Amino acid sequence: MSNNNQNKRIVVIGGGTGSFILLSGLKEYPVELTAIVPVTDDGGSTGRLRDEFGFLPVGDMRQCLAALAPENGQLQKLLLYRFEKGQGLKGHNLGNLILTALEDMVGSEPEAVAQAAKILRLKGKVLPVSNQLVKLVAQYSSNKTITSEHKIETHKLADNETITKLYTNPQASINSEAAKAIKQADLIILAPGDLYNSIIANLVIKGTKSAIQTSKAKLIYIVNLMTLNSQTHRFTAADHLSEIEKYSGRQVDHIILNKQSIPQDIIQIYQQQEEHPVKDDLGSDTRVVRLNLLADSAYQKSKSDTLKRSLLRHDPKKLAKAVIKLVS
Amino acid sequence: MSNNNQNKRIVVIGGGTGSFILLSGLKEYPVELTAIVPVTDDGGSTGRLRDEFGFLPVGDMRQCLAALAPENGQLQKLLLYRFEKGQGLKGHNLGNLILTALEDMVGSEPEAVAQAAKILRLKGKVLPVSNQLVKLVAQYSSNKTITSEHKIETHKLADNETITKLYTNPQASINSEAAKAIKQADLIILAPGDLYNSIIANLVIKGTKSAIQTSKAKLIYIVNLMTLNSQTHRFTAADHLSEIEKYSGRQVDHIILNKQSIPQDIIQIYQQQEEHPVKDDLGSDTRVVRLNLLADSAYQKSKSDTLKRSLLRHDPKKLAKAVIKLVS
Repeated sequence: MSNNNQNKRIVVIGGGTGSFILLSGLKEYPVELTAIVPVTDDGGSTGRLRDEFGFLPVGDMRQCLAALAPENGQLQKLLLYRFEKGQGLKGHNLGNLILTALEDMVGSEPEAVAQAAKILRLKGKVLPVSNQLVKLVAQYSSNKTITSEHKIETHKLADNETITKLYTNPQASINSEAAKAIKQADLIILAPGDLYNSIIANLVIKGTKSAIQTSKAKLIYIVNLMTLNSQTHRFTAADHLSEIEKYSGRQVDHIILNKQSIPQDIIQIYQQQEEHPVKDDLGSDTRVVRLNLLADSAYQKSKSDTLKRSLLRHDPKKLAKAVIKLVS
Repeated sequence: MSNNNQNKRIVVIGGGTGSFILLSGLKEYPVELTAIVPVTDDGGSTGRLRDEFGFLPVGDMRQCLAALAPENGQLQKLLLYRFEKGQGLKGHNLGNLILTALEDMVGSEPEAVAQAAKILRLKGKVLPVSNQLVKLVAQYSSNKTITSEHKIETHKLADNETITKLYTNPQASINSEAAKAIKQADLIILAPGDLYNSIIANLVIKGTKSAIQTSKAKLIYIVNLMTLNSQTHRFTAADHLSEIEKYSGRQVDHIILNKQSIPQDIIQIYQQQEEHPVKDDLGSDTRVVRLNLLADSAYQKSKSDTLKRSLLRHDPKKLAKAVIKLVS
């Protein structure tokens, strides 16, 4: 950890477990962190609260706030805690309820997240990519169109089916604070995670692309470990990268790729859902940084939805170290 | 604020708004605060959670935790926030949900409250008077018996009806940490509040009385401003004091009494429920400290149940100043 990292401004664009892991690792460094998250989540606890309160979705916020908790201790567990019983409570994450209460108190989600960060002394900022409550829409090569992030997530792609266009309905504009953070960043990281629902869902918001294009920041992309049957069925690393560059409108400066082999027993579990390790076909592309990035032990299913979703994960420390090297 | 208050140990016994106000004032002084709260609340949000999770009731805990928040700002409001909509959420206080989640995480309510105090950097400790989940039982002069704190609270006393005996079913024993705090205190304050449901509900727990009797602490009683139609109908200050001394098994060292006159418009609102200012009939008793103790403005009804219940309140600063004088 060298002093010249001090005050480097890092923006992490993404949502869900990917951003959670990356931020968990990065917060140990003396950098200025901003997480930008999508506003299109409409499933589970988040979806229920979105429907009942009409607020921006809180799920991705919650995960980023938890990642930025000063220690990986009780506060983090508390934000991720999910009620397993209680009429009407079952399935809700406490962190979602805290954000909903704060939003009701202060009147806007950006202000709610800012207050949460202050009250909980978090090590960074979390910003919704937009202040507008919109739905995610995916068009498929099969000519199908699906509206709703949750439905996109649960639509299993046919063998040659791909998402040909992603957008929001209605069109939404980027939150000015998010645009400012991107423009002033030293490093912009497109986190690992659901390619369309967590990463590109930010890039299709009006103003994100131009902010990335005009920013002097290095742009880094961290490739997923596994394909996702709802979004990146049979995708190689080059397929991922191609979509990322298409939607961000800019060449990526560095691509971080795991080169560590994935245990066979874990591969088999994913295979049951027709999901596979992402094939590295980026060859001699000089932008690629290949490293051993796997977490030591596969994550056990737990009460927290953050961890439940991915059996296989990047290691927060290894990933953060790789990123920090690129900004030093 | 003089330095000899440093490390004076003050124990506040009570619940609800009374403890909230007193603790809010006392936390501004350099003293070591412990709030002891009853475990017999079974109404509202607390009652629902108690039924669904089988944990100790969280309502009084929440109010004391909120009172001990480092500033009277957003964290305090957040802990007291009450959901006004949301299926299954409506009526729940966020602070109750936080304590319930923590209790589920760490396995016991005393540990949950300790964790909450740590995470939120609170200015004092909150302890349930017992670790046993019990029901409050009141016997009346009318030979009626009512079981359940919530039902006692909503039973309007007939003109000559009084509560002749209060106890819990089953009998519960004092939490050892609460007993220790009482024994080691420099000052024990029986807070204003519902005489039976909030104050005496602590004194009837096996071990509380003997801890108070053996403690070298000064014992202070703060008399309520108004009678309560469910518990202290037509009670004078002497009636309150007599019950307090009966259940604590010890003579009170100081009695704090408001001498400021209560605005007529507020008296009229209380009169509609047959509730009246508590008559000062303690005459020349040298233990009585008479002061102007009213909050400047009557409290408006608000989303928070802490404030909604009492239109008329003690002023936290004035009350705390009066108490601190007695320990200096």
